[in-house]
Amino acid sequence: MTIDAYTITVPVFVRSLGALSAVLGKAEAWSEARRVGPAVLPGCRLIADMYPLARQVQIACDFAKNATARAAGVEAPAFADDEATLADLRARIERTLAVLGGIDPALVAAAPGRTIEFPMGPTKRGRMEATAYLLHYALPNFHFHLATAYGILRANGVEIGKPDFLGAVPGLEFV
Amino acid sequence: MTIDAYTITVPVFVRSLGALSAVLGKAEAWSEARRVGPAVLPGCRLIADMYPLARQVQIACDFAKNATARAAGVEAPAFADDEATLADLRARIERTLAVLGGIDPALVAAAPGRTIEFPMGPTKRGRMEATAYLLHYALPNFHFHLATAYGILRANGVEIGKPDFLGAVPGLEFV
Repeated sequence: MTIDAYTITVPVFVRSLGALSAVLGKAEAWSEARRVGPAVLPGCRLIADMYPLARQVQIACDFAKNATARAAGVEAPAFADDEATLADLRARIERTLAVLGGIDPALVAAAPGRTIEFPMGPTKRGRMEATAYLLHYALPNFHFHLATAYGILRANGVEIGKPDFLGAVPGLEFV
Repeated sequence: MTIDAYTITVPVFVRSLGALSAVLGKAEAWSEARRVGPAVLPGCRLIADMYPLARQVQIACDFAKNATARAAGVEAPAFADDEATLADLRARIERTLAVLGGIDPALVAAAPGRTIEFPMGPTKRGRMEATAYLLHYALPNFHFHLATAYGILRANGVEIGKPDFLGAVPGLEFV
C-alpha cells in the first residue's frame, strides 16, 4: 500500500465523515424517540464557550474539503454554515463527500513541497509546506472536531461507541 | 518532505503528546489556584459511562507507543496504568516519548505490507495491514482520546484553546 498525500487524507476523511453521518443518524433516532426537536442536539455544547455540535460538524467538513483542495492546488466551494437540524448536518456531509470525490487524486498526491496558505480564525492567515500542513494542522484539527462532535452527543446520552466513531475500518479482520 | 510510515506517525505523536503534557500542566496550575486536589481532574468524565481523563491519557499514550512498535515489528514495554495525579500523567507521557525515541525510524518506515495484530478491548483481537492500521485505526483512536482528554478539561473550565491542543506546529508562519 502506497503512502502519499492522497492516501493519508481523502480515504481518512471519507471513512470518518461516513462514520459521523451514521452517528448523526443515531442522534436523530434518539431525538425522535424522546420527542427532542431535531435542532436541539445541534445547539448543544460541552461548555458555553465551546462551539455547539452544528459548528463542530461544519468545521470538520471544512477541514476535509478545504485541506484537500489546498493540497491539490484547486478551489473548493464555500458552504453557507446555515444548518439547523441533524438532517441538515448529514446533508452537509454528503455535499462535502461530493467535493472530495471531485478532486483529482493525482493532484492531491502531488502536494508535497507546495506552499499552503489558509485562514486561522477571523483575522490571521497561516502559511506552511503542504505535507506538514496536512499531518500537523489539517488532520489533527479534523479529528479534534470529529471527536468533539462525538463527545457532545455522548455527554447528552446518545448511545454510540468507539466503533461508531471509527466507522468501516478497511481490511480489519477479527482473529 | 517525504511521506512514509514514520513521518505520518512518530512526529505526529511527539508533537501531540507534548501539547497534551503542556495542557495537563495548565490543568495542574488551574487545580492549585482553586485548591482542587491533583487527583480530581484525572477522575473527571464527560459522562458516567465514558472513561475519565486519566484513562484517556493512558490510552492516547498506549496508541502512540504500541502502534509505533507494532508498525516497526518490535515490542514496546507495557505500562502499569497506575497514574492518579496530573503529575503522574505527565510522567507517563515522558516515558511514552522515551519509548518512541528509542524505536528505529527505518523500521517504522518499513511498515507497509507488514501484518499487524492487536487487542481490541478485553477479549477480541484484530488483524490489519500496517498502513491501513496506522491511518484508519491507530491515528484516529489516538486523536480521539487526545481530543476527549482536552474536552474533559475544557468542560470543567480549564482555560485552554485550540493552539494548546495542536502544540508546536512545525513550519507554521503567520502571513
